[in-house]
Amino acid sequence: MTDQMQKIVLASRPDGAPTPDNFRLEEAAVPTPGAGEVLVRVHYMSLDPYMRGRMDDAKSYAAPVPVGGTMEGGGVGEIIASNADGYAVGEFVMGGLGWATHAVVPAKGLAKIDPKTAPITYALGVLGMPGLTGWFGLTEYGRPKEGETLVVAAATGPVGSMVGQVAKSMGLRVVGIAGGAEKCKLATDHFGFDACLDHRAYDDASALRAALKEVCPKGIDIYFENVGGKVLEAVLPMMNQFGRIPVCGMIAWYNAGGLGADASEGGLTGPKLWRTILVNFLSVNGFIISNHWDRMPDFHKAVAPMIQSGDIKVQEDITEGLENAPQAFIDLLNGGNTGKAMVKLI
Amino acid sequence: MTDQMQKIVLASRPDGAPTPDNFRLEEAAVPTPGAGEVLVRVHYMSLDPYMRGRMDDAKSYAAPVPVGGTMEGGGVGEIIASNADGYAVGEFVMGGLGWATHAVVPAKGLAKIDPKTAPITYALGVLGMPGLTGWFGLTEYGRPKEGETLVVAAATGPVGSMVGQVAKSMGLRVVGIAGGAEKCKLATDHFGFDACLDHRAYDDASALRAALKEVCPKGIDIYFENVGGKVLEAVLPMMNQFGRIPVCGMIAWYNAGGLGADASEGGLTGPKLWRTILVNFLSVNGFIISNHWDRMPDFHKAVAPMIQSGDIKVQEDITEGLENAPQAFIDLLNGGNTGKAMVKLI
Repeated sequence: MTDQMQKIVLASRPDGAPTPDNFRLEEAAVPTPGAGEVLVRVHYMSLDPYMRGRMDDAKSYAAPVPVGGTMEGGGVGEIIASNADGYAVGEFVMGGLGWATHAVVPAKGLAKIDPKTAPITYALGVLGMPGLTGWFGLTEYGRPKEGETLVVAAATGPVGSMVGQVAKSMGLRVVGIAGGAEKCKLATDHFGFDACLDHRAYDDASALRAALKEVCPKGIDIYFENVGGKVLEAVLPMMNQFGRIPVCGMIAWYNAGGLGADASEGGLTGPKLWRTILVNFLSVNGFIISNHWDRMPDFHKAVAPMIQSGDIKVQEDITEGLENAPQAFIDLLNGGNTGKAMVKLI
Repeated sequence: MTDQMQKIVLASRPDGAPTPDNFRLEEAAVPTPGAGEVLVRVHYMSLDPYMRGRMDDAKSYAAPVPVGGTMEGGGVGEIIASNADGYAVGEFVMGGLGWATHAVVPAKGLAKIDPKTAPITYALGVLGMPGLTGWFGLTEYGRPKEGETLVVAAATGPVGSMVGQVAKSMGLRVVGIAGGAEKCKLATDHFGFDACLDHRAYDDASALRAALKEVCPKGIDIYFENVGGKVLEAVLPMMNQFGRIPVCGMIAWYNAGGLGADASEGGLTGPKLWRTILVNFLSVNGFIISNHWDRMPDFHKAVAPMIQSGDIKVQEDITEGLENAPQAFIDLLNGGNTGKAMVKLI
């Protein structure tokens, strides 16, 4: 056990898209666990779009990371010192370990994972927060019915691919949207989507909508919202009556600052959005998965066997080394990852 | 029985707010009921904000009234000729009778009403479509819980007053918004709201919000949306986490034409609206009551006894004469009515 650890701190708040100088790699002494705490050596840390929100100081569902503070995030690792009953050295755990090689955290905030039943990385993706987000949002707020049409963007990401594959297993027509021809091929060939459109191939929302009409001849019943922006604008007029929109993210607007007039590209005004909800009797539900951790056992019960059987495919995008985390995160926000983004630390 | 009837037709589509010359009073021969039809002498016709939408040819949940066609709307009246089994001359009915002194309609589209149990006007307001809209939207999508705070605009209208009074009976704090000090007094003194704000007393959404903060110290859990515009903009940042917004109208924007950039006053952009839904885990449900007529018996069962006992108060605004219907409707869109607007024809 070394005495020194490394961590990435928020050096400054981004103005729009984050740049490498918003982050700083620091060394620190490895802390000692207090009562009820454990020291974890982090093996993999997760990169997720929500982390962009934590870099701003706007009011949101979670407090911002303070400037100079360690970037927050989930990770998996091994307990290397324990001061908590029932948590032994050598056990693997998942939890909020931050962008760091080591973390001292309260043991009760951690979930134990068994490296024998599945690769430990699954706890950050397909069997973790993003997977639960997709499964819960789809089944709870999407209310999918056989024969309906679902659209999801970021189709090859860990949320979108879960949404699409579960919907497919329930007999829906599933159309993905992704950035680039390769990802689209992955969505259809690997994840089994019925169709996938490359949003980069369409100049604006109207062009994307025209293409969507080809692959969604019966309109759209469920739009699983994780991107906002051009995709939302394209999809909105295509929503069928009684359509459902679970909203778990809006990555296209995460860099939009105050979300003022500038962010309202293409005339997606509040009144237009509101009118569509009204005249099509839409059900729109915002949610953040941390309010629904209690559904994790249900999720595992439903989905783990489908992973085992190969009905749900896994795709991970692993960067090596903590020092490369900031760039990997910047890439993620630009759609540069293919599959669940994470950083291998050991 | 006279051979002539009168009706109001749509003379031209309005450009923004309707004007008297968008309507025309016409005479016609009283038609004869065909098989399964009845001829109804209309006693009262209803005026409702949704009728504004029928005057445009934009895509909506109902087909527009054609230019030259009779204005659509609900009414109550007496059967004066019948060609339908089970529907006798002298019976009173409610249904889509249009802006007209007489109507021939299929009997199966009508609901019989009993003038002995309640004034027949109630079938157009407190026990009819607007009342059901308020009760259903509140209980189904608002999911009210004791101790929560609810805000509703058009507080003295037939929808808003139903929402507020039912919520009050369930132990919520109820705050109304209305146009003018007199209506606010009516909301608190007659309908029993905890507070009511005169939106005309506040120049913009920020000023209205500041006033709302005084009367909603614990934020807003349910915003029953029937107006849009400045009120929505004021309310949105005050929504508590897990708040609910049933959306049944947006009267402030009905005259806004294409709902483009012009209608996005005060920076209520699509992204801003979307972000609030996301970060506060809001549940937003658009609905139109005609999809939920099946709940009418439940509604009557719940609410009719409360009207009988005086726990739910009634307020009607009756204009005399079909020829005055257009101006009364124009006034309604400007908030000129106090209570359920209707026109007495006989």
